[in-house]
Amino acid sequence: MKRIVRYEDVRHFDLTADVVVCGYGGAGGCAALEARRAGAEVLLIEQASGAGGSTMMSACEMFLGGGGGTRLQRELGFTETTDNFYAYLKACFGDNTDEARLRQFVDNAAAHFDWMEALGVVYKRGFYAGRDVVAMTGDSLQYTGNEQSYPFNTVAAAVPHGHLPADANHEGGLRVMAALVARVTEAGVRTQFDTRAQQLIQDDSGRVRGIVARRFGERQFIEARRGVVLTTGGFIMNEAMTRRHIPSLDAVALRHGNPGDRGDGILMGVAAGGQAINMGEAFVGVAHYPPAQLTYGIFVNAAGQRFINEDIYLARLGHYIHAQPDPRVYLFIDNRFFDRPAYIQTEIVAVGDTVAEVERDAGLPPRALQQTVAFYNEHAARGEDPLFHKSPDYLAPLTTPPYALSSYRLSDLKPPVFTLGGLDVRPTGEVLDSDGDPIAGLYAAGRTVAGIPRNSQGYASGMSVADVTYFGRLAGIQAAAAAPA
Amino acid sequence: MKRIVRYEDVRHFDLTADVVVCGYGGAGGCAALEARRAGAEVLLIEQASGAGGSTMMSACEMFLGGGGGTRLQRELGFTETTDNFYAYLKACFGDNTDEARLRQFVDNAAAHFDWMEALGVVYKRGFYAGRDVVAMTGDSLQYTGNEQSYPFNTVAAAVPHGHLPADANHEGGLRVMAALVARVTEAGVRTQFDTRAQQLIQDDSGRVRGIVARRFGERQFIEARRGVVLTTGGFIMNEAMTRRHIPSLDAVALRHGNPGDRGDGILMGVAAGGQAINMGEAFVGVAHYPPAQLTYGIFVNAAGQRFINEDIYLARLGHYIHAQPDPRVYLFIDNRFFDRPAYIQTEIVAVGDTVAEVERDAGLPPRALQQTVAFYNEHAARGEDPLFHKSPDYLAPLTTPPYALSSYRLSDLKPPVFTLGGLDVRPTGEVLDSDGDPIAGLYAAGRTVAGIPRNSQGYASGMSVADVTYFGRLAGIQAAAAAPA
Repeated sequence: MKRIVRYEDVRHFDLTADVVVCGYGGAGGCAALEARRAGAEVLLIEQASGAGGSTMMSACEMFLGGGGGTRLQRELGFTETTDNFYAYLKACFGDNTDEARLRQFVDNAAAHFDWMEALGVVYKRGFYAGRDVVAMTGDSLQYTGNEQSYPFNTVAAAVPHGHLPADANHEGGLRVMAALVARVTEAGVRTQFDTRAQQLIQDDSGRVRGIVARRFGERQFIEARRGVVLTTGGFIMNEAMTRRHIPSLDAVALRHGNPGDRGDGILMGVAAGGQAINMGEAFVGVAHYPPAQLTYGIFVNAAGQRFINEDIYLARLGHYIHAQPDPRVYLFIDNRFFDRPAYIQTEIVAVGDTVAEVERDAGLPPRALQQTVAFYNEHAARGEDPLFHKSPDYLAPLTTPPYALSSYRLSDLKPPVFTLGGLDVRPTGEVLDSDGDPIAGLYAAGRTVAGIPRNSQGYASGMSVADVTYFGRLAGIQAAAAAPA
Repeated sequence: MKRIVRYEDVRHFDLTADVVVCGYGGAGGCAALEARRAGAEVLLIEQASGAGGSTMMSACEMFLGGGGGTRLQRELGFTETTDNFYAYLKACFGDNTDEARLRQFVDNAAAHFDWMEALGVVYKRGFYAGRDVVAMTGDSLQYTGNEQSYPFNTVAAAVPHGHLPADANHEGGLRVMAALVARVTEAGVRTQFDTRAQQLIQDDSGRVRGIVARRFGERQFIEARRGVVLTTGGFIMNEAMTRRHIPSLDAVALRHGNPGDRGDGILMGVAAGGQAINMGEAFVGVAHYPPAQLTYGIFVNAAGQRFINEDIYLARLGHYIHAQPDPRVYLFIDNRFFDRPAYIQTEIVAVGDTVAEVERDAGLPPRALQQTVAFYNEHAARGEDPLFHKSPDYLAPLTTPPYALSSYRLSDLKPPVFTLGGLDVRPTGEVLDSDGDPIAGLYAAGRTVAGIPRNSQGYASGMSVADVTYFGRLAGIQAAAAAPA
């Protein structure tokens, strides 16, 4: 299917609005709301029969900080400068950073928290200090990434950035979307479900003038006087696209997203002259905790060597497992700290009363694991990890038999994966062409764009939700302010 | 600049041909020649003032085998089944393989060698057994990749695949292009230099009907009755594109290509509905040999650990240096094997009479390097490398002081980088849209497409030249056979 229709060939429009937002998840809802608040007549369409998108499937942690600290951080005794927040995020993605986007975000992330509270999302003034993917205590503030881990803790002071809806556990997305939908409805945004955007309408000058959607088998021509905002999600549910762009993960992944994450917005944006970037990068989550005590164990590769500090965030682990030349990766642990991970199924490949026995049974090179464990134990007894700098909180000699080795091979684990590539946009959501110029009338946000998080090794829970809601807002504001065509 | 012009808006054409080939390097020359031989009237344009492209800059090794062995392999006593050649290449790229393209290539690679000889390229019946990037002996057959190295040697029997023009050393590209240009000229291909393709002309049905080129500041409208073949190279010389697609390498790379490698063909193909894939992957060449004796050394990361078998090809090393969590990587070697690498500048960061002294001076974790060296030496003395399986040919204890540690940090080395992403095409060069259907009238080959080599860790010298010349031929044949518009 061609994803562009010529405006000059369109004979009539079924619907007209100032701003047409395609996709009613976190990004689309925020874009529509802000566009409406700015005075635009807004039509928000969604391919599913209800709002939510992948945002609703998430715990809706938001990764926020800077500006002295968010209201929640400050009320819980934490402060953070904008520079510190910038330094942390810059360390996460390094050269693969959109500086303008990052600067915009760190300067406004604390205020974005106030915006979320004003939306009606309730945050509980409680800090959860434990090591879990999502706090199960009802508390709203926690560490969700690598803030306390090497090398990030050498670059920025450790501050908890994860802001969770109160008492929601894994269901924060329901709370956030409920509040967002209520405000969107009150504000008078027109919504239409069961409507999938399929083509952009572009005039001969290059300006985007609307969309062609499909609704119950019928084509609908929808005019956008000021602009179209693409917020249709990523492409993890599109098998052809994942085979094309993340082939090596496609083979091992559990697709993590809602069924609408088919890349529609990316494909339409590219057809209009946009650039898809970062398309080979994806989140790879290997949840090696909770329970936290598993972090006392050590990961080893096929050479019996450690390769990372085990106190890292789960997606950083996923990346470095994937980066090993040999896919065989194991967790070695002793009986004192042994447990089963809560969110993944791991197979125990060897158990023994000595390290040598485990090493032999697993087929590791003779004495390699023994040497690794001896070196680790000797330093752990002193609270040191000179090789990888794991936090002393999780350093203790592994000396209580029996010992166990579990497989963390990705093809066995089938870790959840979602995509981090998408359209190249300005912070305002303006979609850029190959010359770096905006395409008139076209905006995008959410996982349809390449956002703040650009790889798995620097990811933290809450980065996507923070990015898609904040930059969704900006895209809506920008589209509403455009001069009508 | 919009990279598409509507056919219906074009008032006249300055030139017309059956097949228009854009880019006169190895791929474009082969495409034009085969299209002409198939009876088409062919126009071959080139943005530079002469033929050559990046093919001419290369040594023009061709990575060939299978079919019982190429004529050169067989005459030098080597045989290779097609299955063995397939197994080797499949091991190189794993899940990131285009099966149809790979099968087509391995089935016809041996015959492609005959085609090159028939073209007039001279190959010398001599096998160079040494370890060098390019044989400097004049011999035409050598190992150029990881054929003899673990794990590839466990998957496929080691056969030399590098086919070099005779007595050319690094200048094989001149020989191949001279032969190709002679045949292209004899065949009656019309050529026009100083002509840069900028836009595709596409009709409302989606068929590509020609190009708009720029020649000495003037626009030229060129009609292609049967098809356009895009062979304009990769995009390593386009700074905006490398920042977008390979940001972390952009920061450390020496751009390796001809000035025309600006991604023009990729951008035009995408504008016509094509899909750019594999855009984040690039060749990263860290030439840790010659001299071969450096392979007796061991590479260690910031934790003082080895991470790879040192007998690998230079681009595999580049990949695994880049994959380390900490950018600091070193070569450790003793005085018996010490030398300086021929093609890169490395800085010696520590020299000492003991390993401990080197370790301390380099700031490595205490005892980490000592343990690594002791373990390595003990096994090397027995001709074994249980951790990474380096060939016994390069195993010897490193016990002759003084010892040296050189930096192989990429940001210091500035290794040559070129891109491996491009249009998604069928083996025939037909450019595919997002539904996987061919775009009528549009073909591509060379580094404008994602070819056989898809990452640095599996690369071998000669893979690109073999891929671009062989599949350039197929694209020319396919375009010539298309029904006129």
